[in-house]
Amino acid sequence: MNADDSGLVRLRDALRQFADARDWDQFHSPKNLASALAVEAAELLERFQWLTEDQSRRLPPEELARVREELADVLNYLVRLADKLDVDLLQAAHDKIQLNAQKYPIDRARGSARKYSDL
Amino acid sequence: MNADDSGLVRLRDALRQFADARDWDQFHSPKNLASALAVEAAELLERFQWLTEDQSRRLPPEELARVREELADVLNYLVRLADKLDVDLLQAAHDKIQLNAQKYPIDRARGSARKYSDL
Amino acid sequence: MNADDSGLVRLRDALRQFADARDWDQFHSPKNLASALAVEAAELLERFQWLTEDQSRRLPPEELARVREELADVLNYLVRLADKLDVDLLQAAHDKIQLNAQKYPIDRARGSARKYSDL
Amino acid sequence: MNADDSGLVRLRDALRQFADARDWDQFHSPKNLASALAVEAAELLERFQWLTEDQSRRLPPEELARVREELADVLNYLVRLADKLDVDLLQAAHDKIQLNAQKYPIDRARGSARKYSDL
Repeated sequence: MNADDSGLVRLRDALRQFADARDWDQFHSPKNLASALAVEAAELLERFQWLTEDQSRRLPPEELARVREELADVLNYLVRLADKLDVDLLQAAHDKIQLNAQKYPIDRARGSARKYSDL
Repeated sequence: MNADDSGLVRLRDALRQFADARDWDQFHSPKNLASALAVEAAELLERFQWLTEDQSRRLPPEELARVREELADVLNYLVRLADKLDVDLLQAAHDKIQLNAQKYPIDRARGSARKYSDL
Repeated sequence: MNADDSGLVRLRDALRQFADARDWDQFHSPKNLASALAVEAAELLERFQWLTEDQSRRLPPEELARVREELADVLNYLVRLADKLDVDLLQAAHDKIQLNAQKYPIDRARGSARKYSDL
Repeated sequence: MNADDSGLVRLRDALRQFADARDWDQFHSPKNLASALAVEAAELLERFQWLTEDQSRRLPPEELARVREELADVLNYLVRLADKLDVDLLQAAHDKIQLNAQKYPIDRARGSARKYSDL
């Protein structure tokens, strides 16, 4: 990874240390980590499931604090899984934005939520 | 955000630009972004659903390429959602590691996958 | 299962036949089936992720047809997983309603979406 | 719905009664119900995330009891969502099995977990 990623590198190392200290590597197959990540993404979604879109834009502080914890859980499993698969997350993210730019050309996608296959 | 995060800041800005160019902000309520994030996390999980844990550790190149794309989608929605909620992802992630260290003390959690409430 | 469940019993048997004919039992561990179920639930969610709540109440016919397929996928994996674990789905569902009635007493829960732990 | 579905009809009615008594219909847009369903499917998945496939086939009784509760939650939200969209779940499920039989012809799909688009 390059200089851009020093924050994600520090996080990756902190997560390695955490898991090693607890002998948790045995549970951290990519299959299991992908499950854990999906579970945390759903815990994050749960904070919003009965809110209106407007309410979701104006979260009270204690709710925002809970959401912040779930965002953190998702990032931690994402970084851990990317580490196990030796994937550069930031590079992958930028590559995907490039691909999406082709799938969703501005002139055809502007103002529409349709999936690229339905454009 | 601080110097550590320059990679995530660049990504956040690229995602703002992408959505603005397509007039997509109207769809990007936190509620909707949390849904989209959960959907992408499940698309990532789908790549592993029929694999054994061992197979998940030895992905063929074309499979790894597909997984890499899904990891990117998850990070992109995570950064977008954190941006809308003005949450510093890296700080939140490190704070959560601290909290987890208390929930899962090494002497009690070592070698066990039990949830903290069952320790 | 009792007479009430003849529909779910027929579905369970059709799914057994389908998997047996394709020698798919080897992939149908409860762990894998739970993953597949979560993936299908997210595919269902995807149909709604950019819609407003009002739009979700007035789906055009072609959209409803796609949603119907995803509802079917979720039920099929749910019945298959319950079969593997020898769980009577209808009985479990009614038992859970009883438990929820205690968690969410009418006088305290009426008109509120708060989780029972926050009531 | 026909005679086959009397169990699902009874469940549908019990869920209507439960929500009406608590004035919860206001929260039960299809969009919100789809979110809640995805959240419950992930809570079910969480019970398996660190288990091996073999362990998932041999759940201890207290674990099976917890899984049973999550299976119930998924079915309850599925029936509630299908009710709101006026979808006959059993018919949809059987129709999907027919469609899957074409996507996964026995001679080509036997013994393989490949997705139909990769067959």
